[in-house]
Amino acid sequence: MLVVQKFGGTSVADPGRIARVAARIKGAVQDGHRVVVVVSAMGDTTDELLALAREVTRNPSPREIDMLMATGEQVSIALLTMALQAKDCDAISLTGAQAGITTDGIHTKGRIVDIDTARLRSELDRGRVVVVAGFQGVTPDGEITTLGRGGSDTTAVALAAALGAEVCEIYTDVDGVYTADPRLVPEARKLDVISHDEMLELASLGAVVLHPRAVELAKLYGVPLVVRSSFNDGPGTLIKEVGDLEKAAVVSGVAHDVNIAKISLFDVEDRPGIASRIFRELARSNINVDMIIQGAMRDGRNDIAFTVSRDDLSRALEAVHRIQGLVGAKGITFNDTLAKVSIVGAGMVSYPGVAATMFEGLAEAGINIAMISTSEIKVSCVISREEIERAVRALHMKFNLGEAPAGGPA
Amino acid sequence: MLVVQKFGGTSVADPGRIARVAARIKGAVQDGHRVVVVVSAMGDTTDELLALAREVTRNPSPREIDMLMATGEQVSIALLTMALQAKDCDAISLTGAQAGITTDGIHTKGRIVDIDTARLRSELDRGRVVVVAGFQGVTPDGEITTLGRGGSDTTAVALAAALGAEVCEIYTDVDGVYTADPRLVPEARKLDVISHDEMLELASLGAVVLHPRAVELAKLYGVPLVVRSSFNDGPGTLIKEVGDLEKAAVVSGVAHDVNIAKISLFDVEDRPGIASRIFRELARSNINVDMIIQGAMRDGRNDIAFTVSRDDLSRALEAVHRIQGLVGAKGITFNDTLAKVSIVGAGMVSYPGVAATMFEGLAEAGINIAMISTSEIKVSCVISREEIERAVRALHMKFNLGEAPAGGPA
Repeated sequence: MLVVQKFGGTSVADPGRIARVAARIKGAVQDGHRVVVVVSAMGDTTDELLALAREVTRNPSPREIDMLMATGEQVSIALLTMALQAKDCDAISLTGAQAGITTDGIHTKGRIVDIDTARLRSELDRGRVVVVAGFQGVTPDGEITTLGRGGSDTTAVALAAALGAEVCEIYTDVDGVYTADPRLVPEARKLDVISHDEMLELASLGAVVLHPRAVELAKLYGVPLVVRSSFNDGPGTLIKEVGDLEKAAVVSGVAHDVNIAKISLFDVEDRPGIASRIFRELARSNINVDMIIQGAMRDGRNDIAFTVSRDDLSRALEAVHRIQGLVGAKGITFNDTLAKVSIVGAGMVSYPGVAATMFEGLAEAGINIAMISTSEIKVSCVISREEIERAVRALHMKFNLGEAPAGGPA
Repeated sequence: MLVVQKFGGTSVADPGRIARVAARIKGAVQDGHRVVVVVSAMGDTTDELLALAREVTRNPSPREIDMLMATGEQVSIALLTMALQAKDCDAISLTGAQAGITTDGIHTKGRIVDIDTARLRSELDRGRVVVVAGFQGVTPDGEITTLGRGGSDTTAVALAAALGAEVCEIYTDVDGVYTADPRLVPEARKLDVISHDEMLELASLGAVVLHPRAVELAKLYGVPLVVRSSFNDGPGTLIKEVGDLEKAAVVSGVAHDVNIAKISLFDVEDRPGIASRIFRELARSNINVDMIIQGAMRDGRNDIAFTVSRDDLSRALEAVHRIQGLVGAKGITFNDTLAKVSIVGAGMVSYPGVAATMFEGLAEAGINIAMISTSEIKVSCVISREEIERAVRALHMKFNLGEAPAGGPA
């Protein structure tokens, strides 16, 4: 069986942990598996490199940031490969470029466009564990690009898809995917199985065990994912395509995200093309917009509000100010004291009233709702950030998530 | 004018120093020069990475060491380029691979076999300072190789040769090349000009301002070198082809090397091919042999002694023990308490008696000579290491090196 294993920065933070990761990989080899490993930069390396760059200049160019950042994973792959070799486990390290990972040219936010697996396959055929630098690739011109947030998860899933791996295992510092954040909700329960779609919503909603880009890619290529702890042998949570019958769990979990900000444009002109101008400009700045609300029009004028990641707030404000005149907005305001709470469940679609139960739960806890957004398998509410913990606990209880579902497979 | 400037690790040890190096480079650009910069890893980075590798395993594979080491220079080029950009000086960083530097495949001791200057030239034509990672290149298969000791100097000279640069400036922490080590001989004098050959002998002999590989390459391609301080604006020492008339200085300087060890093979068989077997075996282990002495044969048996770098001693001993039986040696001994003192001068060849004056100077200081080796422009003596400082001072005085030469160009 061909397995892709991904280890995050905390799992390889020092030589001792690297040795433990190497032992785990060797175990998989001894079980008869062929193994490709994807690894992140050690511990705080990425932050340390960024701090160094900021000491040099306040505005480092994205290309040079990529040149700098890519060294973090290169150090990890070399050390992990040495640790494997020290355990008599034949292994070789490959940079993103050497692993054939081609990216588009968007520095610090690159996307994988192709993987040439020839080198990977030939090293696997020689019986070697292949240790690949996560988070990085090169353009066809040989320019080093990093993949931005969740980059190493994305590398792992992309390699699993390109190689046709049976499973992609994401090793992290938690035991798996929970019905809510266990730090907030002590009775939160680990899920054994969850669908890609549910995981995608959970990941997008701030349950950060796995980056949504990686889940999206896994769903697109049907790659089964396992999220499990690198510190114990627990089975973790399996994320896979789940059939209709298995969609018994109406609500699988409660997710929350405190990293959001809301921007409102008042009295925007009400004519075709206005929304597209606003969101095209934001896309041009590489800003992901989450929820969008367009208020009732009155006298040919509109209010438009949307949420973005708090990290993108200042750049998003710059972008909307650039097009304020073009869309005829009378005013622009923002609010960065918000949070988002969401319920997610693949079974939701066939059970009406789930959203109503959620609003009821929040109302019972005396929590006001600022924005609402829904999809087939989730309902999200934007609320005040200081009420987020109470909201998560209230909803976990309202949907009885602490108890294993009576029916269904989980 | 096209200039290649090389800055060593101490010159870029922290963000403050990186800013100062950037200011100096910008000065050269404002003087109208096109500039290619070669930079080493910051401060102690290389040692820190090696220490990390040693924590992981006592026997890291050379390929993975190269993978690890190459990150050091990659960090430096990114930060220096950011510093240049912060000073509104258009610049771009290139790894060895991106700079088109092709190496043979000998890991940790690679040699540059080709430089494809297309990318370098196109970046220069766009008016950019090009900041290249020293010490590294890639094989045609894309395998990262480091160049071993003096690698960054070698990168700088090789780029200067490939680009036809007018001069290659080596910035270091000393003001230039001296008649002897100023820490040992207070009256040592900085030389304004010296020939490649003389510098080559000095570099080989332990006057470590510049690596002999770099000087050799500069001589081969006729690249003028300047060794100067990165901490002041002194003119440094110019190393260039010197015409006959200028060879007036009989002795230019006294060099010393405390990093040598001697290995002796006793009672080796006296038949053709024996020496070749010994030194082929050492070459196979990538060990440079310096002086070789073959003793007078008696009864068809020989003694062979040679010196190597002390760092290579244990590997050299392994190599000779491997072929001890083959060459019929009765015994193998070594001595690592030795040092080498040398006088160097391009004018030496036309002044007989220079070697005799040297031996006389050592005899007057009561210093015993263990081995002697000569070339057209240098005489070297192996002596006891504890006598090396006295030897250097005695010879500096014996040849009046503290005074500027009366004739000649100085």
